Amino acid sequence: MSHTPQTLALPDPLPLDSGQSLDGVEIAFATYGELNPDRSNAVLVCHALTGDQYVASQHPVTGKPGWWERMVGPGKPIDIARFQVICPNVIGSCLGSTGPGSASPDGAPYAMRFPVITIRDMVRATVALLDALGIERLHTVVGGSMGGMQALSLAANFPDCAERVLAIATTSRHSAQNIAFHELGRQAIMADPNWQGGNYYGGANAPDAGLAVARMAAHITYLSEEGLTEKFGRRLQDRPDGTPGARTFGFDADFQVESYLRYQGSGFTRRFDANSYLYITRAMDYFDLAEEHGGLLAEAFKGNSSRFCLVSFDTDWLYPTAESRHVVHALNAVGAPVSFVELAAPYGHDSFLLDVPALDRVVKGFLDG
Amino acid sequence: MSHTPQTLALPDPLPLDSGQSLDGVEIAFATYGELNPDRSNAVLVCHALTGDQYVASQHPVTGKPGWWERMVGPGKPIDIARFQVICPNVIGSCLGSTGPGSASPDGAPYAMRFPVITIRDMVRATVALLDALGIERLHTVVGGSMGGMQALSLAANFPDCAERVLAIATTSRHSAQNIAFHELGRQAIMADPNWQGGNYYGGANAPDAGLAVARMAAHITYLSEEGLTEKFGRRLQDRPDGTPGARTFGFDADFQVESYLRYQGSGFTRRFDANSYLYITRAMDYFDLAEEHGGLLAEAFKGNSSRFCLVSFDTDWLYPTAESRHVVHALNAVGAPVSFVELAAPYGHDSFLLDVPALDRVVKGFLDG
Repeated sequence: MSHTPQTLALPDPLPLDSGQSLDGVEIAFATYGELNPDRSNAVLVCHALTGDQYVASQHPVTGKPGWWERMVGPGKPIDIARFQVICPNVIGSCLGSTGPGSASPDGAPYAMRFPVITIRDMVRATVALLDALGIERLHTVVGGSMGGMQALSLAANFPDCAERVLAIATTSRHSAQNIAFHELGRQAIMADPNWQGGNYYGGANAPDAGLAVARMAAHITYLSEEGLTEKFGRRLQDRPDGTPGARTFGFDADFQVESYLRYQGSGFTRRFDANSYLYITRAMDYFDLAEEHGGLLAEAFKGNSSRFCLVSFDTDWLYPTAESRHVVHALNAVGAPVSFVELAAPYGHDSFLLDVPALDRVVKGFLDG
Repeated sequence: MSHTPQTLALPDPLPLDSGQSLDGVEIAFATYGELNPDRSNAVLVCHALTGDQYVASQHPVTGKPGWWERMVGPGKPIDIARFQVICPNVIGSCLGSTGPGSASPDGAPYAMRFPVITIRDMVRATVALLDALGIERLHTVVGGSMGGMQALSLAANFPDCAERVLAIATTSRHSAQNIAFHELGRQAIMADPNWQGGNYYGGANAPDAGLAVARMAAHITYLSEEGLTEKFGRRLQDRPDGTPGARTFGFDADFQVESYLRYQGSGFTRRFDANSYLYITRAMDYFDLAEEHGGLLAEAFKGNSSRFCLVSFDTDWLYPTAESRHVVHALNAVGAPVSFVELAAPYGHDSFLLDVPALDRVVKGFLDG
């Protein structure tokens, strides 16, 4: 599907949770569909850790279809014949919005001089974009995983910004295990000699090996144990020449799951920047909506006028159903209208991106309601 | 506790599952307690992936107590006043038994010329050691994790070798997720430029950064999500000068769990060899007791005269209870005497090494029975 690729320079410096502020922020974003005359049909789609604005259009680097084409398009659950979908690339990322790879005021890339940002900082940048676009109130904000964190953060910090808040496969705070997996990825990147303290831009080598390992670690958390067993089990990988797989008694990828992980790791480095991976995982690890609001999650949603919908997946062990339930209880405590469903799907955390027809129905129903 | 450190050279070449054979194999082992005159009180303790023969004595590198002192000693569940405990370092490892760091026949270290071995190969070496020690039949073989795999493999391949087989927190085969985590660790090691195709022995630098990342990944799988939450939660790490922890908005270890993982990773490289890590994880990934026996796990135990005991832990997500139950069903199918218990413990897979008094009672009861 075609979209209108755009970049907008925020008029004002962006204040950050760290106390710093960021000048000259640019936000790259895609829109699909038309804004109606009273500007009441805007749906903000927030992307996940390694996602981007190409929600329903071809990725410029990989040439692959948009990451949520099954959900966004004409006649799809988020129907762009009715809604205008806006999807910004988060700050800190590497697909056009200001991040560690962008030029700093001195002309050189920020690299590790880029300030550490938070989910709330990403949301502040997005709200500034909406302001610039003249959108006062969203029909819906929706996102899965880190996109869901942004949706919850927007509801908590800009309570009048969205009529509907749809948070899928997400959490209100990163657990110790979540942090541990991210720290593992960061250490893999920073252990790569090509990382060079983050100053690899413009050089011949980026820390691809470290980034690939980080991606492999993350990928394991995105799939369920059952899903991995169903998809790969202990099946052996056929050789390139078509020979049936066998134990090689070596260190080639004998098992299909090894081959898959290597492919996921190496493919990822073509489209993503290692420093962006450091900054965005850090933002996720810092995320704790309760802590931001005096230690009580319910406080985050006090006085909010939105309707909420939370969706979890029974095989998601990254952000298990209990995390969504925790948010639902907080919303109940302040009397916010909320619906909640745990869907059965075999794909683990990645279910929100995959073929789960029940999710399509939930999304469509919530936007229509 | 003091032990008798010994190394024994196997008199014959060791045949391997790969079809190769290994000449001049040496087995380093520790014994505790005395063998009785009829040689009927020997208890073989098999160690886990990164374990060693120092089951109940100070580690020569780290100076730490033995890894199972709570279980092995005078008056302990495995009472060395009654039993002689024998604990060999597995082949492929790096604490004295022949492995990739050992001198090959040409005098240089094997490095990656070391043959890929299997759990059954480790057991063959151990049985050859027992033969050399004049022990025909063990009172008990016991092990946790990879030690449990060795116990099951010994029962399957040397059915007359042990009167009792006690397998704790283990599995009869590595799952796709198990393989995925190991492959992640191997890729981290091999991505480290200091690995140099395995030829780093004698040089100034070993692939410590990659090995540390591999260890961090493994460590996450050894703990439970609940255990991590209880132990660390989202608590912040105090600074070395005693300042209370705070978000630094940088990439230091702000969270205690980050600090813990970094410590685990870097400490490990002092005591373990990266190539050994590659070979032993490969052996574990290859492990599939059913496949070795015509595809039916029950076949592995047909005609076995041992008594079995399987123990799992409710928070172990590396080798969950279902894996032990799978073994129990196979044993039931061939009418083998087997007891099975799932213990409640908050520590995940590592429970078999930690303070779980119920495990002590199960081990003592099984050895006494």
